[in-house]
Amino acid sequence: MLSHPLTALKRLFFGAPIATSRAHHERLPILFGLPVFASDAISSVAYATEEILLVLAASTTVALGSVVWISIAIAGLVGIVVFSYVRTIHAYPQGGGGYRVSSDNIGSRLGRVAGAALLIDYVLTVAVSVSSGVLAIASAYPATKPYIVEIGLMCIGIMAWVNLRGTRESGLVFAIPTYLFITLILGLIIVGLLGAGRGVGPLTSAEAIRPDQTLAQASALWIILRAFAAGCTALTGIEAIADGAGAFRPPEAVNASRTLILLGVVLTSLFVGVSWLASHYGVAPISLSSPNYKTVLAQLNEGLFGNGVLFYTLQITTMAILILAANTAFADFPRLCSFIARDSYMPRQLANLGDRLVYQNGILLLAFCAGMLIFVFHGDTHRLIPLYAVGVFTSFTLSQTGMVARQIRMKQPLWGIVASAIGAVTTGGVMLVILITKFHDGAWIVVITATLLLLFFAWVRRHYDYLAEELNVAPDERVPISDTTVLLLVPRIHRGVLNAISYARTLSHDCRAVHITINPESVPKMVEEWEKHAPDIPLVILESSYRSLVEPLMEYIDEAVGERPNHFLTVIVPQAVPKHWWQGILHNNAAIPIKMALASRKNVVITNLRYFLD
Amino acid sequence: MLSHPLTALKRLFFGAPIATSRAHHERLPILFGLPVFASDAISSVAYATEEILLVLAASTTVALGSVVWISIAIAGLVGIVVFSYVRTIHAYPQGGGGYRVSSDNIGSRLGRVAGAALLIDYVLTVAVSVSSGVLAIASAYPATKPYIVEIGLMCIGIMAWVNLRGTRESGLVFAIPTYLFITLILGLIIVGLLGAGRGVGPLTSAEAIRPDQTLAQASALWIILRAFAAGCTALTGIEAIADGAGAFRPPEAVNASRTLILLGVVLTSLFVGVSWLASHYGVAPISLSSPNYKTVLAQLNEGLFGNGVLFYTLQITTMAILILAANTAFADFPRLCSFIARDSYMPRQLANLGDRLVYQNGILLLAFCAGMLIFVFHGDTHRLIPLYAVGVFTSFTLSQTGMVARQIRMKQPLWGIVASAIGAVTTGGVMLVILITKFHDGAWIVVITATLLLLFFAWVRRHYDYLAEELNVAPDERVPISDTTVLLLVPRIHRGVLNAISYARTLSHDCRAVHITINPESVPKMVEEWEKHAPDIPLVILESSYRSLVEPLMEYIDEAVGERPNHFLTVIVPQAVPKHWWQGILHNNAAIPIKMALASRKNVVITNLRYFLD
Repeated sequence: MLSHPLTALKRLFFGAPIATSRAHHERLPILFGLPVFASDAISSVAYATEEILLVLAASTTVALGSVVWISIAIAGLVGIVVFSYVRTIHAYPQGGGGYRVSSDNIGSRLGRVAGAALLIDYVLTVAVSVSSGVLAIASAYPATKPYIVEIGLMCIGIMAWVNLRGTRESGLVFAIPTYLFITLILGLIIVGLLGAGRGVGPLTSAEAIRPDQTLAQASALWIILRAFAAGCTALTGIEAIADGAGAFRPPEAVNASRTLILLGVVLTSLFVGVSWLASHYGVAPISLSSPNYKTVLAQLNEGLFGNGVLFYTLQITTMAILILAANTAFADFPRLCSFIARDSYMPRQLANLGDRLVYQNGILLLAFCAGMLIFVFHGDTHRLIPLYAVGVFTSFTLSQTGMVARQIRMKQPLWGIVASAIGAVTTGGVMLVILITKFHDGAWIVVITATLLLLFFAWVRRHYDYLAEELNVAPDERVPISDTTVLLLVPRIHRGVLNAISYARTLSHDCRAVHITINPESVPKMVEEWEKHAPDIPLVILESSYRSLVEPLMEYIDEAVGERPNHFLTVIVPQAVPKHWWQGILHNNAAIPIKMALASRKNVVITNLRYFLD
Repeated sequence: MLSHPLTALKRLFFGAPIATSRAHHERLPILFGLPVFASDAISSVAYATEEILLVLAASTTVALGSVVWISIAIAGLVGIVVFSYVRTIHAYPQGGGGYRVSSDNIGSRLGRVAGAALLIDYVLTVAVSVSSGVLAIASAYPATKPYIVEIGLMCIGIMAWVNLRGTRESGLVFAIPTYLFITLILGLIIVGLLGAGRGVGPLTSAEAIRPDQTLAQASALWIILRAFAAGCTALTGIEAIADGAGAFRPPEAVNASRTLILLGVVLTSLFVGVSWLASHYGVAPISLSSPNYKTVLAQLNEGLFGNGVLFYTLQITTMAILILAANTAFADFPRLCSFIARDSYMPRQLANLGDRLVYQNGILLLAFCAGMLIFVFHGDTHRLIPLYAVGVFTSFTLSQTGMVARQIRMKQPLWGIVASAIGAVTTGGVMLVILITKFHDGAWIVVITATLLLLFFAWVRRHYDYLAEELNVAPDERVPISDTTVLLLVPRIHRGVLNAISYARTLSHDCRAVHITINPESVPKMVEEWEKHAPDIPLVILESSYRSLVEPLMEYIDEAVGERPNHFLTVIVPQAVPKHWWQGILHNNAAIPIKMALASRKNVVITNLRYFLD
């Protein structure tokens, strides 16, 4: 069965194929669904507070303590979005997210905008989560700091590999760190609350960054909006559950909704809790270039848990859940690609499930793009964050606008329409806030990339439409009757050529052998030998004055095609195939230049006739 | 005529093809032959003196002034070798050098030893000459010093390109710098002599390297032998003329011999002259790691010509002639490869003249190997030199031993036999001196590489012998009578498939269409449509439970082959070819995985039937 060594290697790495009928059994219960789809949002606890503090610390107008109020505002936003998305999940229990909902209800054009925005966001989810996870490790083990880019790229490679193996294994492998992270952060908050009761002092580091001159004078509103925009990265995981609802166990809508609400509660508790800890204990961010760099969470962790086993466990768990968050995108990006590809806006190769029930090409594409981002931005989370969240809020807005349109069209109850409208207006406003406050810091890159993606979508669709028209067959269309002339290339007479003669004779009555010679003196011997073996096939001798096999052959082929323009011409290139592939370096492969030269000749078919040595 | 964009590109870069009948016209007169073949030896004036001084400066036992006597000894060696090689050229006017002469007269085994040694030496010629040329530039423009590796690799790339264009242009482009270099060095010697008459003082630099502790105590004999061995790099160009004698204008032997003698005179004069200058003016080498690094020649140049136009002209000319020296190897390495390949000891691809009358694959192979050496040794000439010259003296020894054998066999005059024997014994002795004194510094790498090359030669020959036997056809051998079953893959019915049906019908009466489906519900419609277009061809439906096209097809093919084991099975894969190659990313190429899976199936022929869109 294993016909090729690469096939065996593929099985070893990615496991045996999984039958299509098993697809149902690969679906997720809530227990596994939470880590697979919600880890993205939950893991943002590791960096969202720090991003808010970074903005506040750079100014003198707004106190660091505002982080708590900003976090509560974001928690309210989480509530609105969760509430809206429960409605979406019930309307679309098989999943589809922003792209599907917008396309169905407010038109393909806006749907594609949502799709492009989400694709970019998934790539950023991987890049941000991985780089942030690597920084969690660098906070615990400073010796790893010079290698953050390499470690990040390695993580992406491992994730791509895990995902190429299939969904179920992901759920199993990744459930433990998520629950451990939730437990440990809750523990940290409890220790912090108890410490506050006992009056434990501030943990402020001497290394904390100082206010920036250019921002120090900025208005309080601007600072608060920027801080709010930075914290909105916490919301990027919610879309994932709606997009992937179809991956839950039936009843999909119920299970997905429950997971989503559970996620909302867990996320807001942890996030507001950590922000309160940072505010109460006066922790501020440290610059990445400082030798004593530690994330805000790592500072709290060290200050409250001490420098023992708990500290290292939480840092490693933070890394693990951030990798899990990146893994969310590895589930969603390929699925979204396949939706878009099925609508003919992306290459078809992205639409096909592989033999492990995963979208292999989408996984590889995501790994490549995210790897490039980490490489270009040197694995610095803070530089990637301004690009983040623009996309997901664009999608929120479009998706909920779509839900409003859908409910009006279907004459559904007013309260539902109002709920979706509140969601649409709120997320639309937030999207504008993020776009404006972060435009200069990198959101412009997202705008340009999204525009290019939309142009690409349009180009792909145009090509497939054109293809469909070109290849379309009328129901009564006749197949033309044709014939083929066979040209057999004969460099010299050997066993492989005899085999080729045998094959050529089966194809056509009009067979000709073609011998190209650099040395005319060798011709008579060749003709004599040929007569012995295949007197029924005429031998055409072509002289090459330029030592090239290709050009005399091209001239002859053009001539032969001219003789019978509507017929096929089959060129047989005999090739001896050695037992081992490495022996191939000793064999000229004449078929390659001939194929290249004939690349654009119509009605010319090149057949490589292999003769196996053993 | 230009059927492929790559062909047009190739013409643009490498020029139009040159007819075989023009080969004669591309041959060289002495005026162009000297720069093309002798620049290697002459250019060694740029570094040979420095290499001797490096050994002497590292010790305290032998005075730096000994460089003159060692240089004179090497000049004597040049005389002996030139004299021996004139005999070789007359015996082999069409060229062949060490490999041919040894193979013919003392057996293929020793011939291959000479061949392997020379191949390694040509690679080193490129690496040493280029790195030395780059250092000549770095001596004049210290700003370039951090980029010596990059500049070296760029030079190799340009040389490969020039040589892929053909011989005649090389002669024209490179004649001027050689003659300019000879003139300038003669000028330098004259200025030096005049200066000595007027009592101009020493030019010793404060940066000159100091004696090395480990070598300071070494015996004088050891130091002198090491210095002599280092200086022997000057002899590497002589072999080139004998190897390439066939490239001279007729009468080849006379022109080649005259060029060789001319070379001997020029080389020894310049070399001894420069060594005398260095000795008289007390110039010693400076370490490459010093910020004030300058080659010995650059120090003399600056000291005697001052810091004006002449200084820069000589440095740039030095660079130019060293590039020319590397170019010598670009003429010889591919030619030697082709000799060895024609004897079936190297892959056949190296034996073929390209359409510009050059051995393209040999040129590319040399550029790659030399580039790797420069990269690995960081462009440091001194680290490459110990690997150098072992090869060429091995070849000298074997070649002259061959000449002794040949003259004895042909009963030629005794004086010729004695002359060749003196050459063989002298060069053999020098080879041992180089091998022993430089073994630890890098000559061991050459020994190992040569051994691996000899094993490779033997492996290649064994494969070709086996191939010849396997493919050999008895004169009365019949061509077996056969038949073919045609399988036409039909993903869906489109215009390209109609074209394929038309073709399939021309090939065989036993045609079957194969449709692989993931979704059994779509089958009835497919069958209905098929009946309309090709009712005469049975449609086989294969269900894929793993979404893979390949595995169900493999099973069916194995079954079909089993039905008629001695017949051919032709699998036709229809493929729509877009107008522009970049549109290809939107097309699944189903033929690739099918070809891979069928790679080892005997009697199965895969035919890609292209349908052109326009």
